[in-house]
Amino acid sequence: MNHSLNARGETTKPTRRATANVTIADYLIQRLRDYGVHDLFGIPGDYVLSFYSELENSPINVIGCTREDCAGFAADAYARLNGMGALCVTYCVGGMSVCNSVAGAFAEKSPVVVISGAPGLDERHRGVLLHHMVRDFRTQADVFEKFTIASTELTDPMTAFSEIDRVLDACDHYKRPVYIELPRDMVHVIPPVAHGFRGTVQNSDADATSEAVSDAIDRLKHAKRPVILAGVETHRFRLQDELLQFAESASIPIATTMLGKSVVSEKHPLFIGLYEGAIGDANVTQIVEQSDWLLLLGAFLSDINLGIYTAKLDPSRCVYATSESLRVSHHHYHDVELKQFLSGLIEASKDLPPRPMPKTQTRNKKKAKTGRDNTQLQTSWMVEQLNERLDPDTIVIADVGDSLFAATELTIHERTEFLSPAYYTSMGFSIPAALGAATARPDHRIVVLVGDGAFQMTGQELSTLVYHNHNPVIILLDNHGYGTERYLHAGEWKYNEVAKWNYTELMKVYGRGEAYKVETKDSFLETLDRVWNSPDHPHLIHAVLEENDASDTLKKLAERMKEKV
Amino acid sequence: MNHSLNARGETTKPTRRATANVTIADYLIQRLRDYGVHDLFGIPGDYVLSFYSELENSPINVIGCTREDCAGFAADAYARLNGMGALCVTYCVGGMSVCNSVAGAFAEKSPVVVISGAPGLDERHRGVLLHHMVRDFRTQADVFEKFTIASTELTDPMTAFSEIDRVLDACDHYKRPVYIELPRDMVHVIPPVAHGFRGTVQNSDADATSEAVSDAIDRLKHAKRPVILAGVETHRFRLQDELLQFAESASIPIATTMLGKSVVSEKHPLFIGLYEGAIGDANVTQIVEQSDWLLLLGAFLSDINLGIYTAKLDPSRCVYATSESLRVSHHHYHDVELKQFLSGLIEASKDLPPRPMPKTQTRNKKKAKTGRDNTQLQTSWMVEQLNERLDPDTIVIADVGDSLFAATELTIHERTEFLSPAYYTSMGFSIPAALGAATARPDHRIVVLVGDGAFQMTGQELSTLVYHNHNPVIILLDNHGYGTERYLHAGEWKYNEVAKWNYTELMKVYGRGEAYKVETKDSFLETLDRVWNSPDHPHLIHAVLEENDASDTLKKLAERMKEKV
Repeated sequence: MNHSLNARGETTKPTRRATANVTIADYLIQRLRDYGVHDLFGIPGDYVLSFYSELENSPINVIGCTREDCAGFAADAYARLNGMGALCVTYCVGGMSVCNSVAGAFAEKSPVVVISGAPGLDERHRGVLLHHMVRDFRTQADVFEKFTIASTELTDPMTAFSEIDRVLDACDHYKRPVYIELPRDMVHVIPPVAHGFRGTVQNSDADATSEAVSDAIDRLKHAKRPVILAGVETHRFRLQDELLQFAESASIPIATTMLGKSVVSEKHPLFIGLYEGAIGDANVTQIVEQSDWLLLLGAFLSDINLGIYTAKLDPSRCVYATSESLRVSHHHYHDVELKQFLSGLIEASKDLPPRPMPKTQTRNKKKAKTGRDNTQLQTSWMVEQLNERLDPDTIVIADVGDSLFAATELTIHERTEFLSPAYYTSMGFSIPAALGAATARPDHRIVVLVGDGAFQMTGQELSTLVYHNHNPVIILLDNHGYGTERYLHAGEWKYNEVAKWNYTELMKVYGRGEAYKVETKDSFLETLDRVWNSPDHPHLIHAVLEENDASDTLKKLAERMKEKV
Repeated sequence: MNHSLNARGETTKPTRRATANVTIADYLIQRLRDYGVHDLFGIPGDYVLSFYSELENSPINVIGCTREDCAGFAADAYARLNGMGALCVTYCVGGMSVCNSVAGAFAEKSPVVVISGAPGLDERHRGVLLHHMVRDFRTQADVFEKFTIASTELTDPMTAFSEIDRVLDACDHYKRPVYIELPRDMVHVIPPVAHGFRGTVQNSDADATSEAVSDAIDRLKHAKRPVILAGVETHRFRLQDELLQFAESASIPIATTMLGKSVVSEKHPLFIGLYEGAIGDANVTQIVEQSDWLLLLGAFLSDINLGIYTAKLDPSRCVYATSESLRVSHHHYHDVELKQFLSGLIEASKDLPPRPMPKTQTRNKKKAKTGRDNTQLQTSWMVEQLNERLDPDTIVIADVGDSLFAATELTIHERTEFLSPAYYTSMGFSIPAALGAATARPDHRIVVLVGDGAFQMTGQELSTLVYHNHNPVIILLDNHGYGTERYLHAGEWKYNEVAKWNYTELMKVYGRGEAYKVETKDSFLETLDRVWNSPDHPHLIHAVLEENDASDTLKKLAERMKEKV
């Protein structure tokens, strides 16, 4: 899928480009394609119609969404699978509507390019208010500066090309969203200067890297119980091969964080499970916390990732390496790139004496029971059943709440097959993310786990999946409200209720696909059979749960969090 | 409905409050109620659950929405009708989702209070990332500073009460949104200090006001064709009585801007119509532009309000008075409150010699034709029919696009019966706004005009109207896409298409109400009869239009705008 990724998973960036007679719009489109952006999500509006027309005439496939924030989630999911994603919206009413999606991409390091139209420079008359304007012409750019890693307003033809280069390079380098504002009268402007793209400047400090590697390896040599805790950055920076190479050559078992779930195949012999502190699997928790040399590689030290502060990780026994910082025990190294550090570890681990394969307890995967069972559905049970059906051609997307917590029990077969907003935890991520995933991987089966509250937020994006002939399987976990909150904050609160919908009628609204209302375990299994055997149309399974249904993970999480909430 | 508005339409603000043993949550709730906030919109989340529970235990009615941005639009509409509105959301995933709605309320001067939960102060440990966090703890507050008139983080018990006072006072005074961030461990804190609310400080300059009034009246005395152009601020600042009193005592005809539509009853003898420059009614345009003393009272000089720069208003023949500035001909007065200025005009106009009632041409309201007509529906024709049915108990809400442009042809009977985002023009405003309007005016019939593109953005909020037993009439104008854009930017662009929905199936999803698919004029009239006679349940009329259907106003607008787009 990644036409512009080379064998090492790096994007190919030309060092020079012919820029004679190239408009700003053309250059932006060209550069997006250089980074592998072949599809783009958004909604047109009058300040961006000229650029939309350029997009439609270009090889980039433009996918209209029902809402701008959905375009944001779709671009985020696409970016996670594809290496970079993009969305294009109009000024303010469009841009201000994607703040949450883009903030989520920032928090979870997803390289999303936000392109916004803007009033033309020649219509910014003093004293006249233009429609869609909030406070002044800079309001939107000011807002986006807060949650993008780089941003630019293409107001000057002399610098437009180099600004596009700078901003896209930052997106690729930091795996964070960037913002490009394109005034509508700049779309067709041809800069009067020649332009050569200079390529990326690397700021890695070779001496610091070398010392850090020695430092980490020296301790590893004497470690008896080393463990790798792999985080989502190994996926974002496409370092999964390096991670495995290092783990294999040094025979170190690998756990992942919740956000990092699926960065390595969960069938890999070195994989021991998901680490979630006191709320996770006790066996994994023990192995990780009793490790005498724990290598946190690309992991976020966030509350949910760390089991709501229940993680017991002694810094003096840790290497904490991310794209932004590196700490070995209590000292810090600056300017060490995660990739260089990993390469160093691989190289150095070749000289390590062979270590016996660590004895990791095989996780107790409950084997799904067969036989008739007419009792009411439960989330955990459904996830067990689903687990039996996963294969390397399936992508699972979990929304927030028990969809996510229960999904941590799934066994992921390959890499990047599990998408969720596990750190930023924005409800409503999953259905639009399914659009992004289906666009990036049209040959995969997309399975979505989504609660009723989350579905009501962005569920209409299912119509876009239907419209573009994608065939996702939506499993809608209906516990009549915000179920996680019922566990987090005791009391019979009306505010946790959401309106009851007849969800199965929705496929008639959207015009294609089948829907099923399922209340018992038997009928769920029958439905799952039917659904799996008909991959040629979309399916919506409305799974009716008891109000107090919750996975074990959610129950443990609630126990930990409720004193704070 | 406005229990706390006194006879003059001012909110009653106590000058002192007993604050012993009052928690920060209690004080905030008390002060919201002082300003007439009896209902509040939002979605709970873990950083705001404690405050939500306080709200649910308070007299304030909490209305859960499907999406946060919908809560924002609902609170905006509620504020327009009620004098102040409020919404309550969780940190970042909630707050960042209302940016667009709140930016719209800022642009159109709607007094909306945004309350956001936040991580507790005691959990803001150094180096630990909390879920929902974007960049740092201040990201959300930084963002909201860009489009609120005042904001505060209630992190200090010593100042919490005075901060609440300051921020709510600014909301009321400037009719702009404000932002209050409440860390979850501050909800139940009782400040250790006594607190007396100081009341509002007025900054009006009496001498400047008096001189400005004389200035305006002197010219008025000699004017032969004075006209008032009334804008939306006369509504926001509840100055409609003063406006009419002045117009009547000086016998000056009144036109309104598009955003100001309905600030005076369109049945008033002095009302001459909507002024929209070259795109509006030629008769009104002529009267306004040939006026020798034009008083722009509370009007925004925005592009759509002014007919996309086609307005020809000579400043030397204008008074331009808003809540923020006052210009008479080419000179400016500072610190003159709009209310004081209007009061001065009323007082001074008593000495004016009686002026003969100006002869204004009666607008050519096309009388709706009767008789069988089996041809395809047209937006303009539908609006004519609807016009026949409007009465003082109807509130019309128009979404963006031709819903808005066609609706300018409606005759509004009383004040504030027409709601639309006519300046900020954010698609998807209308359905959530209907929730806000129905909450503020449960005894009114709410009629919504919404296009298919806009409906797909936020249409699910109809389920909340259904859930709360409201009975709106939704007229969904389906021209298969973003119809306005087809007119603004020539070409057969695929990006203007939206997925075709079977909208009539939606009422089955939401579980109550009737739906009709209507394609001909005859069946529209029959449906309108049925709908009007059954006010006890919600109705969705799916009106099928031709793709190129457009009102005259849209056609004229497109003609003017297309060179820029």
